[in-house]
Amino acid sequence: MKKKAKKRLPGSKIKKQRKFTRKKQQQIQYGIGQKMINSVLIALDEGDKIHIRKIVEGLDEYDLARLIEVLDFYHRRQLVEILGDHIDPEVFPELNEVVQEQVIDTLDENQIVNIVNELDSDEAVEILEHMDDEEQKSIIDQLDPELKYQVESSLNYPEDSAGRIMSRDFVSMPDDWTVKEAKQYLLSDTELPDEFYTVFLTDSSTLRPTGEITLDKLLRAKGDEKLCNIMDCEIVPVDVYTDQEEVAHMFREYGWMSALVVDNKGRLIGVINIDDVVDIVHEEASEDMMHLTGAEEGDVYKSVFGIFKSRSVWLITNLFATILASTVVKGFQDIIAEISVLAVLMPIVASMGGTTGNQTLAVAVRALATKELTASNTLRTIGKEFMVGVVNGILFACLIGLITWFMFPNRQELSAIIAIAMFCNLSLASLAGILIPLTLNRFKVDPAVSSGVFLIALTDSGGYFIFLGLAKLILF
Amino acid sequence: MKKKAKKRLPGSKIKKQRKFTRKKQQQIQYGIGQKMINSVLIALDEGDKIHIRKIVEGLDEYDLARLIEVLDFYHRRQLVEILGDHIDPEVFPELNEVVQEQVIDTLDENQIVNIVNELDSDEAVEILEHMDDEEQKSIIDQLDPELKYQVESSLNYPEDSAGRIMSRDFVSMPDDWTVKEAKQYLLSDTELPDEFYTVFLTDSSTLRPTGEITLDKLLRAKGDEKLCNIMDCEIVPVDVYTDQEEVAHMFREYGWMSALVVDNKGRLIGVINIDDVVDIVHEEASEDMMHLTGAEEGDVYKSVFGIFKSRSVWLITNLFATILASTVVKGFQDIIAEISVLAVLMPIVASMGGTTGNQTLAVAVRALATKELTASNTLRTIGKEFMVGVVNGILFACLIGLITWFMFPNRQELSAIIAIAMFCNLSLASLAGILIPLTLNRFKVDPAVSSGVFLIALTDSGGYFIFLGLAKLILF
Repeated sequence: MKKKAKKRLPGSKIKKQRKFTRKKQQQIQYGIGQKMINSVLIALDEGDKIHIRKIVEGLDEYDLARLIEVLDFYHRRQLVEILGDHIDPEVFPELNEVVQEQVIDTLDENQIVNIVNELDSDEAVEILEHMDDEEQKSIIDQLDPELKYQVESSLNYPEDSAGRIMSRDFVSMPDDWTVKEAKQYLLSDTELPDEFYTVFLTDSSTLRPTGEITLDKLLRAKGDEKLCNIMDCEIVPVDVYTDQEEVAHMFREYGWMSALVVDNKGRLIGVINIDDVVDIVHEEASEDMMHLTGAEEGDVYKSVFGIFKSRSVWLITNLFATILASTVVKGFQDIIAEISVLAVLMPIVASMGGTTGNQTLAVAVRALATKELTASNTLRTIGKEFMVGVVNGILFACLIGLITWFMFPNRQELSAIIAIAMFCNLSLASLAGILIPLTLNRFKVDPAVSSGVFLIALTDSGGYFIFLGLAKLILF
Repeated sequence: MKKKAKKRLPGSKIKKQRKFTRKKQQQIQYGIGQKMINSVLIALDEGDKIHIRKIVEGLDEYDLARLIEVLDFYHRRQLVEILGDHIDPEVFPELNEVVQEQVIDTLDENQIVNIVNELDSDEAVEILEHMDDEEQKSIIDQLDPELKYQVESSLNYPEDSAGRIMSRDFVSMPDDWTVKEAKQYLLSDTELPDEFYTVFLTDSSTLRPTGEITLDKLLRAKGDEKLCNIMDCEIVPVDVYTDQEEVAHMFREYGWMSALVVDNKGRLIGVINIDDVVDIVHEEASEDMMHLTGAEEGDVYKSVFGIFKSRSVWLITNLFATILASTVVKGFQDIIAEISVLAVLMPIVASMGGTTGNQTLAVAVRALATKELTASNTLRTIGKEFMVGVVNGILFACLIGLITWFMFPNRQELSAIIAIAMFCNLSLASLAGILIPLTLNRFKVDPAVSSGVFLIALTDSGGYFIFLGLAKLILF
């Protein structure tokens, strides 16, 4: 089943039917093979444009998108330049965001206008929203009037809001129509989306949504029945300014297939479909995971310099965290000079603290993102995570105490020192692991992005300080 | 729009219409409020069963699921025990997996049978698959015959395979029917799913899928048209043994709304719908993120002991990694005793290595999970990640060299030593960050679960060894 409810805009050129006769057998080969990639690479290196176009002709929009993605930066540009206008506009929305930007960069303005004109407004917005203002404006001015209006209104809403991701192509009708009228409308109207599963109903005077009917209900309903009598009224309209992560959360919580987007007057202005939500869930999860370590979604597609730029920023903040920890060690340089074993044992305390803290941190960051951590369970979760840290602290205090005893049998006081330090640092780390993201979240800072550095600064410095401080206290 | 294509099984009791008249205004309040949670908690503590039932009566299945999730372990059990058979069976599939298990544990076998009998086969399987064999068998034996058959066949397929997650409730018909015949069938058959969006077509002799028609196409087609002439033939059937992560990947790559599942003879036996894929994408991403740190999806809902059990295992392996690193330091104890500054500087090299490696690791693990790392770009990605490590190595070698120069101006040879060590460790770490997950993946070990420990063992031990080894070579 195809993804997009495609509707040709009035005035847009009807795209030449590039319907591919791609292997219409029972078991269609899934994806593109290594053999095809290799022949594309060879043809690219030989500059054999005709051969390339021939290979690519047989691919649908999904496979061509995968082919473009899988190539390296240099060959990717080359392929797009050679194919030029031969690329089905539908390929572009299927590309990874990073690749999409790279590819669009290789095209001239005229080409971009032609591509965007063939897309749905939400897809068009995806391509336009990352351009600089001047280029964006110039392209929008050349779009078909209806698409231009839709794109402009979408861009008025904040990035990642419901208003940006919603589609303006949906089927709605007054709820006082009968089933027969509805069916007639569906048969007669040529401007309907190419694919739709639900008819949305509005109050004819206020334009506010009152309910929805799925097509299977409509298909099986009696002709003289009023729509308002058979519609599903349990709808929860989404405000146009709602963040996309929140929207995805509502889809998951309420098992929606689609969501109605309303403006500040409560009027139905767009629809978000579940297939777009799959992408959002995927991206937001990837982002959280990458941000925890300072990497970025789409790094696989970036150039060395592109990756270096983003990662080095994170590494610099991390450098300061470790320098902070090392100045703590510097404060105890004299006792290390005297008892060098301390330098052997101190990394264990710091490292175990960091690992414990990171476990709690990952849970907290993810739970904040998925709204599993709410006002009603925050305190309890803090308590639980702290208790886990305490219990682990006890376990690992005993373990490391024993191990140290065996490693340095003639220095038994070290066992006690490292055991106490281990317990304190693990308890502290688990508490920090949840309090840091919660605090950042409270101050509207994305906890995924910066929690890690604070945590490592704390568990490293803290670990060294507790261990070396105790050693100084007890041994000197 | 509701999620599930619900079909009452013949022989199952028709569930009392527990249709809630929940706030049918324009803007329904989304979610449950803190006030309601508080009153539930008070009523639970007072043991006021009647009051609890009264509060909960107004909630639909989604909100009741959220309420159960948000309570702590103790109150959760209490609430479920009090509500007992008053809980709509539809609540259970909406629960987080961890919570679902806890809740099911509080019910007796008879109650579980009654609940499962009201569910779709895929939902029933979700509940049954985590039980021990004996309990599972006993419950399945008491199910309605048709559901029993469906559940048993699903459980024959491996966990997380397409066969487990597919729904057996779908609408299919022979492709040689006319549109009129199809519409008549849809009107007459009372056994159809409550909600469906697509009609799947099969070859009447082989039962193999030949195409699909969305309801909107069917609604607008001429009555005497043969279905095979208007159907979409570009279908990619999914083998019943395909892993769910692979299925989710195909949905994202091809923009599907539903997938056809076929058995080894190519016959259509089930359908996977996009709403189930949203949950899979969500869970798999959470899992990868949690596994990287040794935490687990659903930790928010677990008891302290439950969390402790899983995390301590990870911490123990990490303990061995750090002890390995500390034995490296032990080998250089004599030079540290002489030049204690080395102990101050050595954690910086190790920590920066760990951070660099973790960035690459996160990207590699995620790219492996989402199939962005394939045979055709693996070598290139390794090269790219290594180059990023080298460039970062040069940058941070210079930085730390300068900083050390300022910190210890009368020990300038330390600057050179730490700079070289930093460069080597960062280059090594970035290479390890991608090679470790790739190697584990090659040996069919989940790279998300165990890459981290190997990496930290390498970057810590490596960092200390390179730095202290260089110091010994140059200074002694």
